[in-house]
Parts: sequence; structure tokens; C-alpha cells
Amino acid sequence: MKTKAWATHAANKPLEPFEFDRRDPGPLDVAIDILFAGICHSDIHQARNEWGGSQFPMVPGHEIIGRVTAVGAKVTKFKVGDVAGVGCMVDSCRVCASCTQGDEQFCEKGAAWTYNGTEMDRTTRTHGGYARSVVVTESFVFQIPPHLALEGVAPLLCAGITTYAPLREWNCKKGARVAVVGLGGLGHMAVKLAAAMEAEVTMLSTSPSKQADAERLGATAFALTSDDSTFKKMNNYFDLIINTISVSHDINKYLSLLHSRGAMAIVGAPPTPYQLHPMSLISGNRRLAGSLIGGLKLTQEMLDFCGKHKIVSDVEVIPAQQINAAYERMLANDVRYRFVIDASTI
Amino acid sequence: MKTKAWATHAANKPLEPFEFDRRDPGPLDVAIDILFAGICHSDIHQARNEWGGSQFPMVPGHEIIGRVTAVGAKVTKFKVGDVAGVGCMVDSCRVCASCTQGDEQFCEKGAAWTYNGTEMDRTTRTHGGYARSVVVTESFVFQIPPHLALEGVAPLLCAGITTYAPLREWNCKKGARVAVVGLGGLGHMAVKLAAAMEAEVTMLSTSPSKQADAERLGATAFALTSDDSTFKKMNNYFDLIINTISVSHDINKYLSLLHSRGAMAIVGAPPTPYQLHPMSLISGNRRLAGSLIGGLKLTQEMLDFCGKHKIVSDVEVIPAQQINAAYERMLANDVRYRFVIDASTI
Repeated sequence: MKTKAWATHAANKPLEPFEFDRRDPGPLDVAIDILFAGICHSDIHQARNEWGGSQFPMVPGHEIIGRVTAVGAKVTKFKVGDVAGVGCMVDSCRVCASCTQGDEQFCEKGAAWTYNGTEMDRTTRTHGGYARSVVVTESFVFQIPPHLALEGVAPLLCAGITTYAPLREWNCKKGARVAVVGLGGLGHMAVKLAAAMEAEVTMLSTSPSKQADAERLGATAFALTSDDSTFKKMNNYFDLIINTISVSHDINKYLSLLHSRGAMAIVGAPPTPYQLHPMSLISGNRRLAGSLIGGLKLTQEMLDFCGKHKIVSDVEVIPAQQINAAYERMLANDVRYRFVIDASTI
Repeated sequence: MKTKAWATHAANKPLEPFEFDRRDPGPLDVAIDILFAGICHSDIHQARNEWGGSQFPMVPGHEIIGRVTAVGAKVTKFKVGDVAGVGCMVDSCRVCASCTQGDEQFCEKGAAWTYNGTEMDRTTRTHGGYARSVVVTESFVFQIPPHLALEGVAPLLCAGITTYAPLREWNCKKGARVAVVGLGGLGHMAVKLAAAMEAEVTMLSTSPSKQADAERLGATAFALTSDDSTFKKMNNYFDLIINTISVSHDINKYLSLLHSRGAMAIVGAPPTPYQLHPMSLISGNRRLAGSLIGGLKLTQEMLDFCGKHKIVSDVEVIPAQQINAAYERMLANDVRYRFVIDASTI
């Protein structure tokens, strides 16, 4: 079945209209007409081959919301007409230790990434959400809670789970002192989710202009990291810091804000190594941890949590024709807080 | 009460005989005749002012074993003639959140360190275990289990608790896959303790000559970190890595040995910052944590554990006259695995 899409054909080329085949749905497959596809920073990294190994042509997109148009004979979770979501993975081995404990993103065989990867046959290339349709095996399709604006739901499939996972892993709860560093696509989700978990949320930002937004999103406090007194005042204060910064920065200063046994979760990846002083962790038994999206079960839990708390991403909906311009605006931090493609324009 | 000791009078001077006053025991104090005092790497750092802020004259030593010679009227845990231990702290505020949760080492007022510090009056200078006697408030004196060679018990007060604490914090247990990096004063204790916890212990070392020793200490496997194939073979293998290396090294390579959500605990402090790649942690939700000695309750637990499992440090007992030579030999890695001063020679 042909589907229209937007693809890039080389690292140094813009995205342009493209057409390719989606498989016919098998017994366990769900066919989805895409409604909205979020644009993630990692789309830019991969489209421009900044991480290496990119394969072209590439149809990016792993924040996918759509409507079910067909289901295989053995599908039980979905029926035609349902709203459905697809995130960063479309399959995994399902039998390794990681998969069986709900960490499909760490599948020992390597998960089948939604685009710029292959299905588990390791041959069939995958293409993502900047398209009119997608066909995915049922287990990797998420149920979407009702009454949410669907354009705002799309980014939950990556930005949402990326921030929800460390909040859960590091025990964000009522009254916890949580800092979110950086107010972008990830940071704004972290603030909303931590606030819904009834944490005391502090936004740490270099930009005074973001204070009003941070408070609107649910932050109870705002502190400027360009002001050194912030680091004195908040020394040893936080239980958990969600660090979304993807540019080089002095991580030691931020670690000093954790009290003993507090944790900083890294969800942004600066291009250069952190210069990490051993004493920044030894002093106070502090913890530094990475977090990579989340498994299937946790992702569905996150979506249900967002349904219960009426949480969606703040988005700017664009037609496909603006994808390349949107990439440039993202690099200039000119989006509050996520671009979402209206797939009907593809 | 005068006590004989060995002290250093300046960062660039050797230690030499010294005499100073210990306080008369108050109602809550325990007076101890020191039998053995371990030599810790941090003694060298502080004697040579390598961390800054050293005060002279300085009597180093925070791995102290001795016999009680007098107790204050309100002392309940000790009587004259008991064997007693003193570690890195001699007091703390006892009322802050850290102290009340058993983390006296993170006392918000600052613990009273055993030497090169002050008592909680912030005026009276403290002097350590390279001395004939010490007087310490009862709460900061440890009970020593019977039937252990006392010269080998002394290093438990720092090297023992420094490695026991992260093993407990990160859930070392029967069958856990634990790696110990570096076989020195800390590393050899980590191997013994993890083996007694029935973990599967792998020693990671650059030195083939340490294999026999590692196995004697309880390691079930040994792998050479100078051999790159080690990092391929053991990729994603360990639950926990105790990193005792105090020289600069590529921490990313070692982190790759952790499976998802595995933890590396840092107990050695290299002089230069780690060059930490964000993806070393993001990939696999890996964890990197510091660990600084341990609180009173945990230290007593460690001593009792060592009593139960007949664990002591491997030591070379020296007379005080060899302290300066011992410092040089430690810097040349020429000790298996801890120097302990016979205090009767002071």
C-alpha cells in the first residue's frame, strides 16, 4: 500500500515529498491513518546524520497519533476507528531479559526503531511518522485516553515518556523537591508531569523570559542559573533534578543542588563530554543517571496518567511544507514547545 | 593529658615525633590507648595539603583501634579494658536531617573530622590516630567484635566502611554480578566484603600479577582492563561496579560493562575530572554514584558483619619511624594492602 510522506535523501538536503510502500497488515498488525506527528530534536540529528549511520531516504517521526483503519485477524486491543499512538519503537525480540522486564528499548537484539532502522528481520527498513499512514504490530501500538487534544498527545510518545520515566524511576511524589533544568520540548513536559505528581517543581533556566511560562506549566518556583547566587541558595536542596540541557554546561554546579543521595537524571545529550569532578558525586553520595525513553508498559501508564490529569504537550501545528523551516526554528529555540505536523497536509 | 604522636608541621615536611594534650574525659567520653592506626591515602593528601586548607601541626590517622582506659560517668557502651574503634568522625551536630537519618558524614553543620578539623565548638582542633591515645565522645566510638586480629581491624574504620556502604546502598547480594576496579586498600576490602555477601565478584585490574591475590581474597573471576577484549566480552554484564581508581581513566569504558539500570559507585577520586559521555549513562539508564565513608549505624553494622564473616584487612604493620617511607611506598603501590602503625612504637 503506497503512502505519501516527507523524506530526506541525504544529510545535507532538506526534506521533500516522498512516496513509499507500507506493508499490508498481517494478523497482528494495526494499520493507522496518521493524524499528527511530532517533531523531535532527534529527528534533526538523524536527518542530518549527526549521530552517524543514517540511512537514506529517511522518513523521520516517532511521535505518532492516528486513527485505526484496519486490524489483523488476531488483534484484540484495537478496532477500526480507534485513536492509536506509536512511539520510538515498532518491535523488539520480546524474549530477552530486557524485553521481559518491560525495557524493550534495551532489547538485547536491538529494538526495531520506528525510523532509520529495520524491522526485527534486520532487513526491512523502517520509516516514521512524517507520513499519511503506518502499519505496526499491535503490541507496539498504544491506546490513547479520551478527551485529549490529539495534536498535543503526539509528543507524549517521545517527550512525554522521556521525562515521565525518570520521574517514576527516581520516585517523584507528593512534596518531592524536583528541579527541571531547561525549558524546551522535554523540560515543559517534565514540569507538567512532576506538578501532576504533586512535587514541588522548580524551573532552572538561563532565561528570565521563561518564568511566566514555567509557572503557567506548573512550576512553583523559578531560579536563574545565570545568577551564581542561585547555586548558593539552593545548595543541597533537591531530591531530583531532570536535566534536559543538550548544550555543553558545567554539570558539577547543578549536582551541588542535590542533597545527599539525590539524583540527577540526564535526558539531554550535549555534544561534548561532561567534565565531571569525582567529588561532585562522592560528596553527599549523589547520583547521576541516564534515562532513555521507556518501555511499552510504562509508556501506556504515562498516557493513562496524562489522560487522568488532562496533560498534553504545548504544540504549534504546522503543515508538512514547513518542516524544514521548523527544523531551523527549533535550532534557534523558537518553539513553545513542540512542532507537530498536521499529517493531512502531507 | 599529654600524648605522644607523629605529626607534620608543613605540607612539604616529613612527619616527626610530636606531643600534645588530649582533653580529660568528660561524662560522655571514652579514653582510648591506641593499639593500631591504619594509614589511608587521604592522610597523604591532607599531610601534603593536596586538597587545600590543611592546618598544621597535623596528626593524621582515622583508622584507630585501641583499648579503653577510662570512661565518663554517663558512658554505657564501654568499660575499661574493652577494645574500641574510631573512624573518620569524632562528633557531629546529631540533630540535622542527615544526622538523624544516620548520615553523620553529611552533617549539615559539618561533622567533626577525626583530624585536620575541629570539634563541634569549631575552635578546638582535632588530632588523629598516629598517637598513643585519643578521647572521643561515646557515640562516635565503635564496638569491635571479638576474635579478629586487631591490626587488621583498624583499616575497616575507613577502607572497610568506604566499600561496605556502596555495596549495601546498591543492593549487593547473593548472586549479584559485582566488579571491583583496582586492587588496593579499598579494592581488596571491596572484594572480601562482596564475596562475603555471596556476590559473584570479578576483579578488573591492569596488572596480571594481581590475579592470584584477587582470587585468594574471594574474586571468582579476574579480567585485564589493559586488554580491550575484556570490554567486549563483559559489555552490559554487571549489576554493580565499585570503582576504586584514584588516577585518571576512561570511565565510559567501565560504564559500558553495566547492564541496564546497573550502578557504578565511585570511591576513588582521580585528580582530573572524568570525561563523561552523556550516552554512557543514557544508554541503558545506567547510574553513576559517589559514596563517602558511612554513618555511625552503618559502620557498626559493617564491623559486626566483619566479625561474623571473620573479615579483616590485609596489612603490613610498621613502627612509627617508617611512616614517611610508608607514604612513599603507598604512592608507588608497594603495599598489600594497608600499612598499619603499631602505636606502641610512637
